[in-house]
Amino acid sequence: MKNTFGNSVAVTIFGESHGEYIGAVIDGLAPGIKVDREYIAHMLTLRRPDGKISTPRKEKDEFKIISGVVEDTTTGTPVTLLIPNENVKSGDYSEMRTVARPSHADYTAECKYHGYQDSRGGGHFSGRITAALVAAGAICKFALEQKGIRIGSHVKKCAGVEDRDFQDLLWDIETLNQKTFAVLNEEKGEKMRKAILEAASEGDSVGGVVETAVVGMPQGVGEPWFDSLESVLSHMLFSIPAVKGVEFGAGFKISDMRGSQANDPMGIAGDRVYTVTNNNGGINGGITNGMPIVFRTAIKPTPTIFKPQSTVDFKTMTERVLEPKGRHDPAIVHRARVVQDAATAIALCDALAMRFGTDWLK
Amino acid sequence: MKNTFGNSVAVTIFGESHGEYIGAVIDGLAPGIKVDREYIAHMLTLRRPDGKISTPRKEKDEFKIISGVVEDTTTGTPVTLLIPNENVKSGDYSEMRTVARPSHADYTAECKYHGYQDSRGGGHFSGRITAALVAAGAICKFALEQKGIRIGSHVKKCAGVEDRDFQDLLWDIETLNQKTFAVLNEEKGEKMRKAILEAASEGDSVGGVVETAVVGMPQGVGEPWFDSLESVLSHMLFSIPAVKGVEFGAGFKISDMRGSQANDPMGIAGDRVYTVTNNNGGINGGITNGMPIVFRTAIKPTPTIFKPQSTVDFKTMTERVLEPKGRHDPAIVHRARVVQDAATAIALCDALAMRFGTDWLK
Amino acid sequence: MKNTFGNSVAVTIFGESHGEYIGAVIDGLAPGIKVDREYIAHMLTLRRPDGKISTPRKEKDEFKIISGVVEDTTTGTPVTLLIPNENVKSGDYSEMRTVARPSHADYTAECKYHGYQDSRGGGHFSGRITAALVAAGAICKFALEQKGIRIGSHVKKCAGVEDRDFQDLLWDIETLNQKTFAVLNEEKGEKMRKAILEAASEGDSVGGVVETAVVGMPQGVGEPWFDSLESVLSHMLFSIPAVKGVEFGAGFKISDMRGSQANDPMGIAGDRVYTVTNNNGGINGGITNGMPIVFRTAIKPTPTIFKPQSTVDFKTMTERVLEPKGRHDPAIVHRARVVQDAATAIALCDALAMRFGTDWLK
Amino acid sequence: MKNTFGNSVAVTIFGESHGEYIGAVIDGLAPGIKVDREYIAHMLTLRRPDGKISTPRKEKDEFKIISGVVEDTTTGTPVTLLIPNENVKSGDYSEMRTVARPSHADYTAECKYHGYQDSRGGGHFSGRITAALVAAGAICKFALEQKGIRIGSHVKKCAGVEDRDFQDLLWDIETLNQKTFAVLNEEKGEKMRKAILEAASEGDSVGGVVETAVVGMPQGVGEPWFDSLESVLSHMLFSIPAVKGVEFGAGFKISDMRGSQANDPMGIAGDRVYTVTNNNGGINGGITNGMPIVFRTAIKPTPTIFKPQSTVDFKTMTERVLEPKGRHDPAIVHRARVVQDAATAIALCDALAMRFGTDWLK
Repeated sequence: MKNTFGNSVAVTIFGESHGEYIGAVIDGLAPGIKVDREYIAHMLTLRRPDGKISTPRKEKDEFKIISGVVEDTTTGTPVTLLIPNENVKSGDYSEMRTVARPSHADYTAECKYHGYQDSRGGGHFSGRITAALVAAGAICKFALEQKGIRIGSHVKKCAGVEDRDFQDLLWDIETLNQKTFAVLNEEKGEKMRKAILEAASEGDSVGGVVETAVVGMPQGVGEPWFDSLESVLSHMLFSIPAVKGVEFGAGFKISDMRGSQANDPMGIAGDRVYTVTNNNGGINGGITNGMPIVFRTAIKPTPTIFKPQSTVDFKTMTERVLEPKGRHDPAIVHRARVVQDAATAIALCDALAMRFGTDWLK
Repeated sequence: MKNTFGNSVAVTIFGESHGEYIGAVIDGLAPGIKVDREYIAHMLTLRRPDGKISTPRKEKDEFKIISGVVEDTTTGTPVTLLIPNENVKSGDYSEMRTVARPSHADYTAECKYHGYQDSRGGGHFSGRITAALVAAGAICKFALEQKGIRIGSHVKKCAGVEDRDFQDLLWDIETLNQKTFAVLNEEKGEKMRKAILEAASEGDSVGGVVETAVVGMPQGVGEPWFDSLESVLSHMLFSIPAVKGVEFGAGFKISDMRGSQANDPMGIAGDRVYTVTNNNGGINGGITNGMPIVFRTAIKPTPTIFKPQSTVDFKTMTERVLEPKGRHDPAIVHRARVVQDAATAIALCDALAMRFGTDWLK
Repeated sequence: MKNTFGNSVAVTIFGESHGEYIGAVIDGLAPGIKVDREYIAHMLTLRRPDGKISTPRKEKDEFKIISGVVEDTTTGTPVTLLIPNENVKSGDYSEMRTVARPSHADYTAECKYHGYQDSRGGGHFSGRITAALVAAGAICKFALEQKGIRIGSHVKKCAGVEDRDFQDLLWDIETLNQKTFAVLNEEKGEKMRKAILEAASEGDSVGGVVETAVVGMPQGVGEPWFDSLESVLSHMLFSIPAVKGVEFGAGFKISDMRGSQANDPMGIAGDRVYTVTNNNGGINGGITNGMPIVFRTAIKPTPTIFKPQSTVDFKTMTERVLEPKGRHDPAIVHRARVVQDAATAIALCDALAMRFGTDWLK
Repeated sequence: MKNTFGNSVAVTIFGESHGEYIGAVIDGLAPGIKVDREYIAHMLTLRRPDGKISTPRKEKDEFKIISGVVEDTTTGTPVTLLIPNENVKSGDYSEMRTVARPSHADYTAECKYHGYQDSRGGGHFSGRITAALVAAGAICKFALEQKGIRIGSHVKKCAGVEDRDFQDLLWDIETLNQKTFAVLNEEKGEKMRKAILEAASEGDSVGGVVETAVVGMPQGVGEPWFDSLESVLSHMLFSIPAVKGVEFGAGFKISDMRGSQANDPMGIAGDRVYTVTNNNGGINGGITNGMPIVFRTAIKPTPTIFKPQSTVDFKTMTERVLEPKGRHDPAIVHRARVVQDAATAIALCDALAMRFGTDWLK
């Protein structure tokens, strides 16, 4: 479905970097869900470039909701969000039209859209579109919180510097959701920021890993085969620009373990079954087991750098050397984590509504 | 859609480990595609346990095609495959019914199916079902080959032993598709098998990494956002049992690189654009760029081991120690690679039919 | 999705008239639903030609269930039904391969499948496939009955003879579900059968109208726009071969009414809202209002007749006169009503599971 | 998918009668399609109430396109249309909130949305939303015209007055697409308008039948079973408010015919197969045969009338007599035909893109 994700709760996104608006439609949300505009604004602020380690493009993200919400409550019909684009300097991008920026979508857009794509600022491929995803996800994330489901992410790794692991999950999530540069260990965060600025000063960029935890998910959600919860979440996560890997629980590390290490021993606490370790990331056989869902994404370094790169002009079919100018992020991993929270919330709302019905989130 | 994957070419799988048949329906395949029964049988043979490093359960996989094929050619209507189950010893599994095997789906099946699940041999969660997926995928893989699209996978890592990287891709793929234990370096393969047998002798199991390459994919396939080709492929790959991670191109390693290392420089060879490196795994902005698609999955160690494990009886809600008996694989990574080939073929057929129409594969 | 219908409860059908089996997969049914084999057999018997006013082809319909059911109870995973084809005389159909039977799908199959279609006995287009739909629908219909939702249909019109209207709905439905030739007024039924035999004796065929009532549907099911319950039901109903019209409530007659006649006055009985008339057929704005859902389909006369007809040989592209031989029904309207019951049950199960969750039908 | 229709070309609609905007997102349109703003404006004008036989609510429908179009050409990414609501008098509707208007969706909205629905002016159920559908459909209809596919509809019947049948289809379509009150025989149109005004003067309303013809559809589009072209079109058509019946070709009349009358004799003209009659409405076995696609919808009389009606207050659960005030249409059939054209165009674009690929419409 291309720009629509979900079967019961379905989000459609639209817009281009340099158009009048970007936006999203959230269809299928239960009626009677509180819509907290400050919560949305807060998540948009966290996603926004901060001007130091991010692009100086100023994004105010003054969203408006034009349907589906009455008196800050969902009606049950499509919720539509619009975010105006501002501070657009199209001129910066004029050279890009036929000269592909390596590791960007310029050339593949040409292959698919045959020259009709809006290439100003990345057009529909622009990370800018994630603002719409964040706004839509903020509504979903807030709704999940009312049902006791909490989502939080941190920059697990950036420029090779690793943050500490999750410990007290609820506390960690609470803390992270307030942070602009979301790390659990501030010293490590400081090192990351230094490394980012260092790369920036060399005209280069860095990547990282974003780790997400979801606490409070009901058991029994997900499907054995093609709609395993891992399938559904990864489908969503790989639509976040720059994500090149997704892993659950112990992830790739589990492939080096023996069964006796990897298997999560089970026990009973009160009336609940739990696992002592969580190498499976809260999902067995595609279905939630009630433990926290934990996953990580690999975020590639921002492809736009200020160093000469070999590339091609796909119109004239000649080789070229590119030295981009403009406003760009030396790292996006700290902003991607907000997108990851939002994307996760959308995918979970859909899975829950499929499982428990359209009124469940109410 | 749970047990159905795809929009234009759609595969539905069904069956349980100890039922009469497992099977698959492939809907939407173009008419006029050759169905090579030996090719299917060959892939089923590669997936089958070999009795030494796999479970001694003998699976003959005498599939039959009961619809959609006339004179070994697709008619364009649903192709249905049935594979009879044989050599079933239900008794071995009787203890399992309410005592959860750690890292299996026993407990989550209970959460979802409330005691009605067929738990004999893993029921619908059993790796046995992948035989149906392999048969369906074999038809798709063969069809893709006629269009010049080749898929091949190897055991990139097993029990910590690493195979060499892909080099001459077409040659490597050709070779791997003939091998029972698919590695590019036979010495490494020997070491892996030794490590597997060693783990087995200790009642333990090992995991690994399966790496797949696809050569010959047309450019311009995939979508910018929710149906990025990475999204679609990972959706499919995470439905393979035991997969806990998926990464494309440089994958998680790209998160440690700088942009100047990660970006794939572009050049022109004849009338084609190529990239010098392939850290993006053939996909930019969710869309194929014409370079080989390369990805890896993390396969967890077989959860069934012959060591005592702490677990629970979810019926009586008491803690238990489990010491499984039965027939099981000390490793499945070498069998998973066949499933991965098949799953990939199905997902690509769907993406191609969506892009170029229902007759394209003909 | 071509041969798959539904989002939460999804039915896939497969097979050809002269293949080994036809069948269906029902995915997404709640676990713990009773599967009554006699109920299925009963519905298959009602659909079966009776040898007098239907084709003498003997169909025993000895179905078997090969997955998803343990001890006559659904497990929650895909339920697969197989029905073997018997008594196949392929020879009768040899002339048909390139000479199109008017108003059949022979020519359009050629347009779509380019000569690869299985044209023996109509192949995948054959009414025979509806046996699989009936078997799948029987499971759904029985499940709905356990939840107090009753479905029944009658031959409202055949060969111009009209049956009486529904009166005491529950009683009428109960009665109809036991009848081979389902009419509410047996005298009218006798007239219909005579008219059918008369047409048959002239080598001709007749059509009719099938009317269905659903009692006990919960309120609030369906969607305002594209998934209005009328949209979803008509989507399903138009996939029954020979259906050329679908109307709800007063249907086409409502277009001649004034608003003051057409509007259904509302009242309160106990704790329920009801409408005095039911011109809207139980659906307002796409959503159920709790009144019976009532709709009718127009069934065209069986296209195979034993009179000379002008047609074409689409291979040689020459005009031809066709005089078919073989076994065929002079009317199918009395058999179509069973298919209509089954198809309705499937569509409603899906709508209910989407609305109230996957466990609701349990 | 509720407010999204389509798999390859997918339209999402949103908005409420009294919100700031209504709108639509068209996803999956090929790149390079001309977007003719005057064509869209023209169709919106035709849909708009004319103030005499329609509601005096003034709708200017000053749409804007905020994404997916550059220099009046589609980019290939989502096209988003916004239409501002104007001239809103919310006060008129205040009584409606809990007193159900008979045959409206007020009560079913309550059943589904539990009091959270936006009930001002019908909210998301309002016919007003069809303006967004018309704008989206206008883009699709224009695109189809560039490929030689023409769509046109007329008021086949209104208040019991019948228009003449289609004759010279292309000419008829051309003419109808210019008319505000689309009939083929102006005398009949005059009689219809008189009957409408007469009903209006009595505080009543009338219904009608809208007939559509599609010329130039390629052969071989549609599917044998669940995605028969009739299924897909009727799914869309039944989402148009007030549609209570859909019939193809001879429709319900075919049920009174004998096979020898109903069957369409086939012949050859040049290199094309044609049928002498078109009782099947251009579709056999769910697939287009190259003849014009012809269908009719039954439009119920506008439910809002200015006569006392028995109804209920669903909040207090008391019976009430309702005498609505406000601005309403004594007939909508002449406006519905524009919606029908638009809806048809959307459904056909999707079917064609599924069949021939995403670039076909370019």
